[in-house]
Amino acid sequence: MDFSQGLPAKKGPLDGITVLDFSRVLSGPYCTMVLADLGARVIKVERLATGDDTRAFGPFVEDDSAYFTCFNRGKESIALDLKSPRDRQLVDRMLAEADVLVENFRPGVMDRLGYGAERLAQSHPHLVYASISGFGQTGPMSDLPGYDMVVQAMGGIMSLTGWPDAPPARVGTSFGDLSAGLFAVIGILSSLYKRTRDAQGSRVDIAMLDCQAALMETALATYDVEGKVPTRTGDAHPSLSPFEAYDAQDGRFIIAAGNDQLFMFMADALGSPQMALEPQFLSNAQRCRNRPALIEAIQAITRTAPIAHWIDRLNEAGVPCSPINTIDKLFEHPQLAARNMIIQVQGEGGRAFRTAGNPIKLNAYADIDVTTPVRAPGLDEHRERILSQLMSPTGDYAPATGAFDESLLKEAI
Amino acid sequence: MDFSQGLPAKKGPLDGITVLDFSRVLSGPYCTMVLADLGARVIKVERLATGDDTRAFGPFVEDDSAYFTCFNRGKESIALDLKSPRDRQLVDRMLAEADVLVENFRPGVMDRLGYGAERLAQSHPHLVYASISGFGQTGPMSDLPGYDMVVQAMGGIMSLTGWPDAPPARVGTSFGDLSAGLFAVIGILSSLYKRTRDAQGSRVDIAMLDCQAALMETALATYDVEGKVPTRTGDAHPSLSPFEAYDAQDGRFIIAAGNDQLFMFMADALGSPQMALEPQFLSNAQRCRNRPALIEAIQAITRTAPIAHWIDRLNEAGVPCSPINTIDKLFEHPQLAARNMIIQVQGEGGRAFRTAGNPIKLNAYADIDVTTPVRAPGLDEHRERILSQLMSPTGDYAPATGAFDESLLKEAI
Repeated sequence: MDFSQGLPAKKGPLDGITVLDFSRVLSGPYCTMVLADLGARVIKVERLATGDDTRAFGPFVEDDSAYFTCFNRGKESIALDLKSPRDRQLVDRMLAEADVLVENFRPGVMDRLGYGAERLAQSHPHLVYASISGFGQTGPMSDLPGYDMVVQAMGGIMSLTGWPDAPPARVGTSFGDLSAGLFAVIGILSSLYKRTRDAQGSRVDIAMLDCQAALMETALATYDVEGKVPTRTGDAHPSLSPFEAYDAQDGRFIIAAGNDQLFMFMADALGSPQMALEPQFLSNAQRCRNRPALIEAIQAITRTAPIAHWIDRLNEAGVPCSPINTIDKLFEHPQLAARNMIIQVQGEGGRAFRTAGNPIKLNAYADIDVTTPVRAPGLDEHRERILSQLMSPTGDYAPATGAFDESLLKEAI
Repeated sequence: MDFSQGLPAKKGPLDGITVLDFSRVLSGPYCTMVLADLGARVIKVERLATGDDTRAFGPFVEDDSAYFTCFNRGKESIALDLKSPRDRQLVDRMLAEADVLVENFRPGVMDRLGYGAERLAQSHPHLVYASISGFGQTGPMSDLPGYDMVVQAMGGIMSLTGWPDAPPARVGTSFGDLSAGLFAVIGILSSLYKRTRDAQGSRVDIAMLDCQAALMETALATYDVEGKVPTRTGDAHPSLSPFEAYDAQDGRFIIAAGNDQLFMFMADALGSPQMALEPQFLSNAQRCRNRPALIEAIQAITRTAPIAHWIDRLNEAGVPCSPINTIDKLFEHPQLAARNMIIQVQGEGGRAFRTAGNPIKLNAYADIDVTTPVRAPGLDEHRERILSQLMSPTGDYAPATGAFDESLLKEAI
């Protein structure tokens, strides 16, 4: 749409798509970050004075939140008072030019602001309207607040994560928010594709809890078929062996040799080919049954040399393996470097710092340039540009579309 | 495309899209399951006699693998010998009708089979060609095998998951495979959208390791900005409090009251409003600093009654909270039921069982019908239908497109 005229050419399959982003914190901003990485123009509508809550989240780089900067790279910002009639006219103009709206308020808030999906489906039928919430727009728990921590607990992943003799652990990243963000991107892109056929927008309703259930792999089926409640297995695969971490001289590392051939290769690489011939280790089923003995047999060898030694040997033999990397190791990782996965980002005033780039590699488009920081916007930084694009030839805003009952605003958050 | 003529009408935004699916095991089949859930026709090309490896994975329902059935619901199957000239002609015909190809072999295998991305970009320029691999199609580690366990270790998530005084744990679901599957869907859909503009296919190259890095939230930035290596925090949020699990009379449950107002509401709900006034708990920073004292203060109360009691109280007060559900609890969860998230699937011969449904809710399309099992195909089940559609009017296959050097086949797996 011509809303993007005057901007530098973007590079990505979503070039020309404009996203009006009312979302805050993590799930919504992660969703629109992926859209921006793919070439969409994302205009972040922020609260006056304070903006996205995460602008106040540490760590800080000079005055900029590194948290905010990570997930809002490549976006524009305009700060608006959604209760002011003048700013509401502006939103209406922006909506007329937008292809996608993203929000992650609690269900009902956008309705009370006068920007609910049903109203906008009437006034802006071309719009793909995506909502992310803890529990979705429907159902008995729809109104409850759903944080990452809450859906990780409710959806079952915590019960499967950690060691069997310790309490459930959370996934060490905000799996609930991030996965909901990814499913929202999928809902939006499939709706945009459909729109090329019927010129109709869609309503996309993503619940963090639904996404958790969708990512439980075979855990539900296993319970329904076998009646056994799946539980935590530490670092081991529930039904393959060897397929977990083992002690080396200087720490633990992973060997994933889940079939007989790989087990033979592993035994050779460890300098103990006879291990593969022992009756108790002949098949995966036997190796699972005799797991404690297998762990001892492997560690009796692996404890004698450092991780790097075993990784080299196992890689030569074609056996899947890995050190258990801490985060600092990712910065010097040769494969991530070769894939342009460590990029730089920068806030309004601060220095650049590094974060992960875009994992969606498409032949027709260049990766994010790793030598030039991607900017995250200062609060309201793009007001002038956005306003000047929206000005009608008469120098005033165009009339707003749709009526709005101001009395409803009192209920809004 | 008219390849889908004669099939029942599908319901979803990808209706009319045909996916030729060479993928096996988990990451690729999960990707194409999402595409099928969105209405695409997915034709699974399987190895003769044995098919997808996961047809041999337990648990079993009569003779059907529940594992296979979960991730291959709603697809069609044809078994082909990719080294037979006759079956290769058939693949060429299917490619001419397909919109998307998905594969998750190790880099190089599809080239050796004569179906590499570069060759098909010449012969089938409309095709969106998506590859998922452990480390991607480029870079020094491209050839190494990458299993879920390996990328969970290499990409950093294990170092962040589990309790600080115990070894790193894996995420209790195949986070490496599933997230790569989701990013692949995003690459495919953005390419299909772009194709509506320029009529050109794309090459989508997804590496499981890249996806891991992309999901590390602010962990990389935190290290780069503060120089501290992030580590495991058990079930606690690293910078919010109270935001973790607490003991009740009958187990542990989550309270996520990450700001001052919610903390006040929580103190009220626990019947201890004075807790919110204690100087050591006045701000989130103080609560994080005095976390052990806060845990004790909370648990002194929560240990006196069962989880259900506290969940009711906290929900009434609007404080985010949850039991730590085991997987069996999801089947009776009222919100998942209301959202049609527990569906039935069924293999070729076996009885139906339950798994999670599609979390992408779109207003224009009905959810998967929870009362009717979605079928996963028997090996080669749809051969007749596919063959009859491909027959040319002369009763023979159309000539193959592109030359193929048979000598290359020896190298293929």
